[in-house]
Amino acid sequence: MIEVALFGAGRIGSIHAGNMVRQPGVKLKYVVDVNRPAAVELASRHRAEVRAMDAALADESITAVVIASSTDTHADLIQRAAAAGKAIFCEKPVDLDLLRARACAQAVARAGVVCMIGFQRRFDPTFVALKQRLLAGEIGEPEMLVSTSRDPGAPPIEYIGVSGGIFKDMLIHDFDIFRWILEDEASTLYATGSCLTDQAIAAAGDIDSTAVTIRTRRGRLAQINTSRRAAYGYDQRFEVLGSNGMLQAGNHKPTEVFAHTAASVSCDKPEHFFLQRYRSAYANEMAHFFEAIGEGKPVQTTINDGIKALELAEAATRSWREKRAIEL
Amino acid sequence: MIEVALFGAGRIGSIHAGNMVRQPGVKLKYVVDVNRPAAVELASRHRAEVRAMDAALADESITAVVIASSTDTHADLIQRAAAAGKAIFCEKPVDLDLLRARACAQAVARAGVVCMIGFQRRFDPTFVALKQRLLAGEIGEPEMLVSTSRDPGAPPIEYIGVSGGIFKDMLIHDFDIFRWILEDEASTLYATGSCLTDQAIAAAGDIDSTAVTIRTRRGRLAQINTSRRAAYGYDQRFEVLGSNGMLQAGNHKPTEVFAHTAASVSCDKPEHFFLQRYRSAYANEMAHFFEAIGEGKPVQTTINDGIKALELAEAATRSWREKRAIEL
Amino acid sequence: MIEVALFGAGRIGSIHAGNMVRQPGVKLKYVVDVNRPAAVELASRHRAEVRAMDAALADESITAVVIASSTDTHADLIQRAAAAGKAIFCEKPVDLDLLRARACAQAVARAGVVCMIGFQRRFDPTFVALKQRLLAGEIGEPEMLVSTSRDPGAPPIEYIGVSGGIFKDMLIHDFDIFRWILEDEASTLYATGSCLTDQAIAAAGDIDSTAVTIRTRRGRLAQINTSRRAAYGYDQRFEVLGSNGMLQAGNHKPTEVFAHTAASVSCDKPEHFFLQRYRSAYANEMAHFFEAIGEGKPVQTTINDGIKALELAEAATRSWREKRAIEL
Amino acid sequence: MIEVALFGAGRIGSIHAGNMVRQPGVKLKYVVDVNRPAAVELASRHRAEVRAMDAALADESITAVVIASSTDTHADLIQRAAAAGKAIFCEKPVDLDLLRARACAQAVARAGVVCMIGFQRRFDPTFVALKQRLLAGEIGEPEMLVSTSRDPGAPPIEYIGVSGGIFKDMLIHDFDIFRWILEDEASTLYATGSCLTDQAIAAAGDIDSTAVTIRTRRGRLAQINTSRRAAYGYDQRFEVLGSNGMLQAGNHKPTEVFAHTAASVSCDKPEHFFLQRYRSAYANEMAHFFEAIGEGKPVQTTINDGIKALELAEAATRSWREKRAIEL
Repeated sequence: MIEVALFGAGRIGSIHAGNMVRQPGVKLKYVVDVNRPAAVELASRHRAEVRAMDAALADESITAVVIASSTDTHADLIQRAAAAGKAIFCEKPVDLDLLRARACAQAVARAGVVCMIGFQRRFDPTFVALKQRLLAGEIGEPEMLVSTSRDPGAPPIEYIGVSGGIFKDMLIHDFDIFRWILEDEASTLYATGSCLTDQAIAAAGDIDSTAVTIRTRRGRLAQINTSRRAAYGYDQRFEVLGSNGMLQAGNHKPTEVFAHTAASVSCDKPEHFFLQRYRSAYANEMAHFFEAIGEGKPVQTTINDGIKALELAEAATRSWREKRAIEL
Repeated sequence: MIEVALFGAGRIGSIHAGNMVRQPGVKLKYVVDVNRPAAVELASRHRAEVRAMDAALADESITAVVIASSTDTHADLIQRAAAAGKAIFCEKPVDLDLLRARACAQAVARAGVVCMIGFQRRFDPTFVALKQRLLAGEIGEPEMLVSTSRDPGAPPIEYIGVSGGIFKDMLIHDFDIFRWILEDEASTLYATGSCLTDQAIAAAGDIDSTAVTIRTRRGRLAQINTSRRAAYGYDQRFEVLGSNGMLQAGNHKPTEVFAHTAASVSCDKPEHFFLQRYRSAYANEMAHFFEAIGEGKPVQTTINDGIKALELAEAATRSWREKRAIEL
Repeated sequence: MIEVALFGAGRIGSIHAGNMVRQPGVKLKYVVDVNRPAAVELASRHRAEVRAMDAALADESITAVVIASSTDTHADLIQRAAAAGKAIFCEKPVDLDLLRARACAQAVARAGVVCMIGFQRRFDPTFVALKQRLLAGEIGEPEMLVSTSRDPGAPPIEYIGVSGGIFKDMLIHDFDIFRWILEDEASTLYATGSCLTDQAIAAAGDIDSTAVTIRTRRGRLAQINTSRRAAYGYDQRFEVLGSNGMLQAGNHKPTEVFAHTAASVSCDKPEHFFLQRYRSAYANEMAHFFEAIGEGKPVQTTINDGIKALELAEAATRSWREKRAIEL
Repeated sequence: MIEVALFGAGRIGSIHAGNMVRQPGVKLKYVVDVNRPAAVELASRHRAEVRAMDAALADESITAVVIASSTDTHADLIQRAAAAGKAIFCEKPVDLDLLRARACAQAVARAGVVCMIGFQRRFDPTFVALKQRLLAGEIGEPEMLVSTSRDPGAPPIEYIGVSGGIFKDMLIHDFDIFRWILEDEASTLYATGSCLTDQAIAAAGDIDSTAVTIRTRRGRLAQINTSRRAAYGYDQRFEVLGSNGMLQAGNHKPTEVFAHTAASVSCDKPEHFFLQRYRSAYANEMAHFFEAIGEGKPVQTTINDGIKALELAEAATRSWREKRAIEL
């Protein structure tokens, strides 16, 4: 039995809790959150107990922690959990600061513990299938990646201010997908962007629309376009052009109803947002984490993947600010 | 040079005229229509002359006729043209009366002339491609045909009265497609229907919605559903289930624009009606007719196909009226 | 807390067990199956106990039963459970014999208990959404239903012999969908069919391909086509033509990957079979059952729906055998 | 009657000839080509005459010229035709050299003649419909353009050497589409690329895969990705994200056949190449040219559009070579 302490009883913590208790041999023992009512509610739903951070980490029966608290707590929790010898699952990003993130990676390496970063997109059934077909050689050698990543709406403006900026907050997923799909590293990166949906975002020093181009060491090309606002919902597509064809990952939609009217033929718009679209992905990543630590296998999205994605996000931020291509 | 007399200067005659003058080695010489202004207009558009029926048929330089006049004139024109030794293209149906239609077939056989019936659907690029893939064995042995045939709106009620009824007027095309696709003949036919869109149609002794089931000699099954009114345009689909898969012929649409909005993801509804949907088919059938007579090859849609489709339409009418399955 | 006895520890019983334990306030207490190892395995998975039928029904703490045992046991179990005052969920069909099924309905009515029949398709997200949009008047008055229902492959030939025939075994779902979607009853029904995929099916007195046409009391038309074998998987589509448009329910597919190659543009074929396609539907129907009995609300698929569907299946069988349309 | 001299009897000249003779009131009088057999063949097909360049331009009955000869002849022909007071249709590009192209624009302005550049994509039915819906405000204010432009295969390597490079030869169309769709001008442009399909292209000093990002004066973003080789045919898509939704222009395909097999559900890949995909566009642009000069209206794709697209192509070439973003 793997006994787990969950840090963070908010929206994503709650999802992880629901998924982890479905894993055979896994028990959610403690819920830790400074928001005590939230912790109590979530704990009681899963017959777990509320604990303070120190107590939870000090309990030797706890062999794994799931970190779903606010970003600014990640680095500290990772380092403490690593020191305590726990297997770690941590939501992205490792930290907004690259140096601190690297310190976490070192702490993890030193402790020799598992540390998986929650890049849940790598566990989405459509993306996984595409990746497998790519590996199977279905379209030959990959040459270009075109990725579209648009949210249905921007987060509250207060969040924007502490988010680390759109590249670290939102595109970090796209940077991870880029690395995972092309199995190659960026050589040059160029990013530009605009504030087009809400001037409050610009006032907070951020942008809401971006266009990123990456050329890899092997000369492959990737283009990523993102927006904080797509009126039609959560748009999560990418396509890979290869020497023998193309593979596309399309959006998921709630139903397969098609309506034919005097106006048009229409179907559902995409799933509303990440909680809907990546429901299976969240379940699959939790299953993967516990299987990996149960069977002593490596996890698919390591803390180094977290660092690499953060490096790209930082380079993108610099490219955008300095209006020039960045060599990596 | 094949010189042609065209009977009928209406909508479909005008389309055939436009298509025939694009055939190399074909000249539209005469336009014949009791509506003289229409004949004059169409003739002048193509540098042809207006002639009376007898004069046109008597001209020995005319080697082919295209009959696009009203249905009640078809039989007489076919018989006269056959007697005059002309190659004949005639719009469907041969005649509303099966005996008269058979007499036409005999006249054609006796004269040894070519007589092609205008089942243009057999020349539609999508349908042709499906048929070729079926013949190539892509889905193995065909087992079931499901055919959907819906008009955007009913013809004028005066036309309904002289149309011969929905089975002869509208489903005759579906019966021909059935025979062409399955390469099999009906053994049992059951038809039912209702008047659901306009009670004036019922008052005229007809129906506007039908459901036909055919079982073939080899035990294959076909279902045809039709309506005089589809709010979303001209719906022309069929699918063939075979032992190894299924082939579907989908609707054509004007453009490939897709719109994503807060309401839905939508694309164009189907092409509005037969003139749009079967534009290529009309051009292709005219090309086929003139190539066939130019090269002495058989035509694909003979007068016997016209008779067979009419027999099915008559059986369907009887089945509907007598509320029972008909053995053929 | 609703405590439940489950009859049948086979494939579908196992699915119902998994779904019912996820309902808040529901406890699977007993698993009953003559196949004791299966019962033990399933019971242990959900911390339930194995019991004999009589003991389970005699336990007054049991307020609901879920019947997922073989068809020939349904009628007896329904009648006993009704007599014992339990709320009943029973897999379709009620019974293969219409008289016995009606006797069950009477027993249920007499006892005044809830009895829900497992027509899970009514709980499929796509079908539910279509139905809601139909009720909302999106396409006006419904006029025609075209339903396609094809299995990926036939069941074992031994099962065919005891299945009650394709109309009772397979089309019973389509007959229920017909009634649910059109909210109308059959006035005339015509069924034909063939054995096209495996002559062993004919030898067992059954067919594998059917074509059914129904005309309703209000003159609406429905066509149902089915096959025991679709090489491309489980094909579950229907469409409703209405006075203002059409609504289609399309197949579900495992992923949204699209491949573009030198041969074609392709996507996944449909979900393999009912366990995959109707996974959500099975979960939803179980939730509905327990919500209904918990809140004292009516269930959506009553034993009378089971009887009505069976009547249509019986009429279809007769129509096919007697080669004539049946008045209902 | 507008009498026309056509310069260039090759593939595209032949298409323009076929389209222009279908315009009412237009007569192809002369065909000019140094390849005399080609000129003779094309002239005889349309009952035109072969003429030398000087004689054709000197004939005062000629009021319009269509320039479809090799790129290196465009500038000279435009200037001579302008001096002779002819209305001019010229294939893209005006010239590979921006200074020479500007000189042409000045000559045209001085002579006060019409000069339309053959950006046929602006006349494609799908693109036109998208543009109209954009203008109608269907998706609000445009924010991002993502454009995919891939050829089925690279031209002969000898052509690559004289093509002016991929940005001038291939992306010039995408740059024009960018300006037409966003109705905005580039402020910053970044281009990168690789040679991934054939090292002979690199040896010729060119690349075959590009990724271009443009930020406009109003802060809108555009990303263009191109490849000389898509195994699945000619890929011509773009999408516009707006404040209220998104409009996509999808590929056209030859037929609407869908095949369901044990492997997948598939449809046709896109039309093979520009002659198939833009068949309607070529016809429409020719109709537009002759209507415009017949009715004295402005043409939609002026020589200034040709200059602007060339400026972007030149900036892209520089950006790629100098590995930096270019301010315009």
